[in-house]
Amino acid sequence: MPDHVEATGVVRWGPPYLLYLGGEADDLAIKTARGLAYWRPEWCIGQFRRSDCPLTLGLPDMHPAQAKAAGADTMVIGIANVGGMMGPGAVGDIVAALDAGLNVIAGLHQKLRDNPEIVAAARANGRVLFDARDANRAIPIGNGRKRPGRRLLTVGTDCSIGKMYTTLAIERSMRQRGLAADFRATGQTGMFVAGDGIAVDAVIADFIAGAAEQLSPARDDGGWDLIEGQGSLFHPLYAGVSLGLLHGSQPDALVLCHEPTRRHMRGLPDCPMPDLQRCLEANLSAARLTNSAVKAVGVALNTSGIAAHEAQAACREIEDRLGLPCQDPVTMGVETIVDHLLASCAS
Amino acid sequence: MPDHVEATGVVRWGPPYLLYLGGEADDLAIKTARGLAYWRPEWCIGQFRRSDCPLTLGLPDMHPAQAKAAGADTMVIGIANVGGMMGPGAVGDIVAALDAGLNVIAGLHQKLRDNPEIVAAARANGRVLFDARDANRAIPIGNGRKRPGRRLLTVGTDCSIGKMYTTLAIERSMRQRGLAADFRATGQTGMFVAGDGIAVDAVIADFIAGAAEQLSPARDDGGWDLIEGQGSLFHPLYAGVSLGLLHGSQPDALVLCHEPTRRHMRGLPDCPMPDLQRCLEANLSAARLTNSAVKAVGVALNTSGIAAHEAQAACREIEDRLGLPCQDPVTMGVETIVDHLLASCAS
Repeated sequence: MPDHVEATGVVRWGPPYLLYLGGEADDLAIKTARGLAYWRPEWCIGQFRRSDCPLTLGLPDMHPAQAKAAGADTMVIGIANVGGMMGPGAVGDIVAALDAGLNVIAGLHQKLRDNPEIVAAARANGRVLFDARDANRAIPIGNGRKRPGRRLLTVGTDCSIGKMYTTLAIERSMRQRGLAADFRATGQTGMFVAGDGIAVDAVIADFIAGAAEQLSPARDDGGWDLIEGQGSLFHPLYAGVSLGLLHGSQPDALVLCHEPTRRHMRGLPDCPMPDLQRCLEANLSAARLTNSAVKAVGVALNTSGIAAHEAQAACREIEDRLGLPCQDPVTMGVETIVDHLLASCAS
Repeated sequence: MPDHVEATGVVRWGPPYLLYLGGEADDLAIKTARGLAYWRPEWCIGQFRRSDCPLTLGLPDMHPAQAKAAGADTMVIGIANVGGMMGPGAVGDIVAALDAGLNVIAGLHQKLRDNPEIVAAARANGRVLFDARDANRAIPIGNGRKRPGRRLLTVGTDCSIGKMYTTLAIERSMRQRGLAADFRATGQTGMFVAGDGIAVDAVIADFIAGAAEQLSPARDDGGWDLIEGQGSLFHPLYAGVSLGLLHGSQPDALVLCHEPTRRHMRGLPDCPMPDLQRCLEANLSAARLTNSAVKAVGVALNTSGIAAHEAQAACREIEDRLGLPCQDPVTMGVETIVDHLLASCAS
């Protein structure tokens, strides 16, 4: 894990983790905790929920002192709600974790370091605070020049639809095939999983493309950078982030992520989901501005909302319609997508 | 002018202005100073250039002490270079201005308040510093809902192509016709001209659309918000800002700004300018996500780079090709564009 300089000196944070769920009731709001528990189960020793939290990760429930006694190093604020704010009671719970001797890391827009109570508790206990969404991180403005290397970017019909999961699954598949392939994290969960990355939605707007360039710099070993996408070109609140990441990544390959039962764009009941073909075309069209050779290589379908026997049929229907392999990365893997990637983008 | 709280208490900055050009040699880099001198000539009493600066606004050259003696209140860092950084010698010149008793305001990404020498001089002299590009300003995340009011947004084939000028010219024309119409500033120059606004390229990326909503809130007096556009959907470094502003503004009307002699996108020799029709279609297509009734109502052509007798022909050619009025706002005004706006968007 990276070093961070705090008032108490250079300190480290890292696993084992206690995952904080607060009082969140929306499963999408705890996707940070869920992602960490899924991709790094060996790092997660417990969950800390408020009494009104109906969600669970299936981990042992622990208070901070219990987690510390069980060997935990750091409490992860595993929450990614709309607006990125701490919920009721969160400050008290974070102070309790610091008092119990845990470090605390978070990816909210509302910063740990901006809360005087939290900062005081960290200092008093000699603990470190880490805000993954740090807009003050020094990022150069992009230069827009074409750079060597091969890059895949996941894009989505909506936010919170499986882009990080899909990207990590592709990394796993490619590495199992003996290929050089590296996940590039663009959100808080990915950063906690990878131990590196940039939360692009927290970057100053003028520097979004520069952040994308820094995330996947020039590369000449023949390997792939697998870049976690953010938002959607069709989400009116977040499309700017998506477009800047798309341009700055200069992707050779796109994988489109979709969830077939979602009725409307996240948080916007009046905003319908885009048609898959139209969404893919819009992403390809925008991506051609910085890489005229960009190709779509697959569709990742989150079928958790439909019956198991319908999932295969849903994938086949999309394959027929778009002419691309379609799989649910969770239940089917991503092998046909990776096969198609390697066949399409052979160097 | 707005109040700002500094270490020295609540203070005001405002005209008369001394415009600082530094040692900039690229005319586009001093567009902030030029815009202020053009739109608010009565506020600008002099310019302060380094000895190597080949540019001029035609104002009297003054050092800070001369400007103070002539009645200046505030020195405006009139520079908007790529990256938004202070040039060589700028810190010393700013300290000299503070020592001479002037306030200092700037719109660079590199903040006045982050430079200890500048902050110390401001405190020692009881002067105020104002950074227009303040990412720490509290901006709510957007809500994405359709809101009442009528809005026009200027969009461009490139950056630095006349969007602010065009928007201010439309405001002037509409007000002369007795209509309620308000310029909404989205960049530093516009903010210094209007005394209000948000520098959207300095907002945290997740909040671009929220900034656009705050700039042009719900309105029910039948008047128009005229929103200054930023960047271009076809500039790979800044398209994210442009798209977020486009979505968040929910524009009823778009005016496309273009400069016919520009050979490539600003700062990117390998990136060609987009075709006008394609650029307009891309903007309309993206704008429909939040306002299905959006219309293009005109083209503003910056003809400063072509012979006077060719400018009219260039406008006619575009009018024939796009079926929209086309004028150079500087030399021809914007009356046919405003006529078409009012005819197209009659409520």
